Amino acid sequence: MEAQIITISREYGSGGRIIGELVAEKLGYAFYDKELVDEIFKKSGFAKEFIAEGGEYAFSKNNFLFNLGNARLSEYDFGYSISDRLYTIQQNIIKDIANKKPCVIVGRNADYVLKDKKNCLNVFIHCDIKTRIDRAINDYGEETKKIEKKLRDKDEKRKIYYKNYTDRIWGMSKNYNLCLDSGYYGIERCANIIIENINRHF
Amino acid sequence: MEAQIITISREYGSGGRIIGELVAEKLGYAFYDKELVDEIFKKSGFAKEFIAEGGEYAFSKNNFLFNLGNARLSEYDFGYSISDRLYTIQQNIIKDIANKKPCVIVGRNADYVLKDKKNCLNVFIHCDIKTRIDRAINDYGEETKKIEKKLRDKDEKRKIYYKNYTDRIWGMSKNYNLCLDSGYYGIERCANIIIENINRHF
Repeated sequence: MEAQIITISREYGSGGRIIGELVAEKLGYAFYDKELVDEIFKKSGFAKEFIAEGGEYAFSKNNFLFNLGNARLSEYDFGYSISDRLYTIQQNIIKDIANKKPCVIVGRNADYVLKDKKNCLNVFIHCDIKTRIDRAINDYGEETKKIEKKLRDKDEKRKIYYKNYTDRIWGMSKNYNLCLDSGYYGIERCANIIIENINRHF
Repeated sequence: MEAQIITISREYGSGGRIIGELVAEKLGYAFYDKELVDEIFKKSGFAKEFIAEGGEYAFSKNNFLFNLGNARLSEYDFGYSISDRLYTIQQNIIKDIANKKPCVIVGRNADYVLKDKKNCLNVFIHCDIKTRIDRAINDYGEETKKIEKKLRDKDEKRKIYYKNYTDRIWGMSKNYNLCLDSGYYGIERCANIIIENINRHF
């Protein structure tokens, strides 16, 4: 039987990462969020800051200023951008991880990367903007200045990134088996809904 | 305390109506699907066939051939189309129903019509195309000929209708508190997830 995989896609500030962590902890599954950045770092030589941002967000013109670590610095290599190279490496690592053991993977288009895997539950977590702002400031230590604009920019960049590599609409319910409004249900209950209803038929 | 309302939006063939019926039955709530058509018929004089189709689907040019019942037959009345008149009547009836007693309302943009109501859980049910086709043929008695095209046309018309009256994207997870893939979870479990997790804080 294939290992059970849960992918969690989420709006920034929705608490999706915490929900994923709770699910992994309660089920005794491995958990990949920042851990994925470490794996990609080991294989690519890209700087961690670049991996963290570039593996989930489309770049705007003025933020291609990362230290790219040990990787080659040419932005394009035979029409293949550095983002594309990161995406390919990231994709292979996600597939590799998913073949090994049950785990929860947060973000990085994992729902799409693993779309042909049967034993995979794809979850999307979203939330009202007010609760997201509160969480970003109080839990993630974000500055209050222009915070709403920052969140909306992040949504936009994730949307573009997802569209670019999947040709799908980010947050569209059809792409996921389960979409939850964490503002309505709260963090703990979101985790419980996921856990209590995993399909174990495969 | 406001009455608890559950709205169920759904793809045709996803089993959303049956899920709504099960939820209403188990919770002892009133159920509005075809019942809503009857209510609208009583108030509008429009033919039931027109209400059933015209209250959820955008019209294509060649299907404005309904018998409009006792309603006036001019398509436009001071820039206000017959569809708009139906929408207004339907909207008022939905608001009226939602103020009276706990209920489950299927379709007809009820999620949007009741968006300012606090005690309202908005659910979207979707499903893979294969299961939808099977259900449409075996449970709803649809003809097998061109059935996939028929389902995709229905999706498209609901999408256009929803966009027209709400300026939102139909099926986008942000519009709902809970989106469920009935192909993954099955009908019974979808109903249970809804029932077991209703937020009763308000």
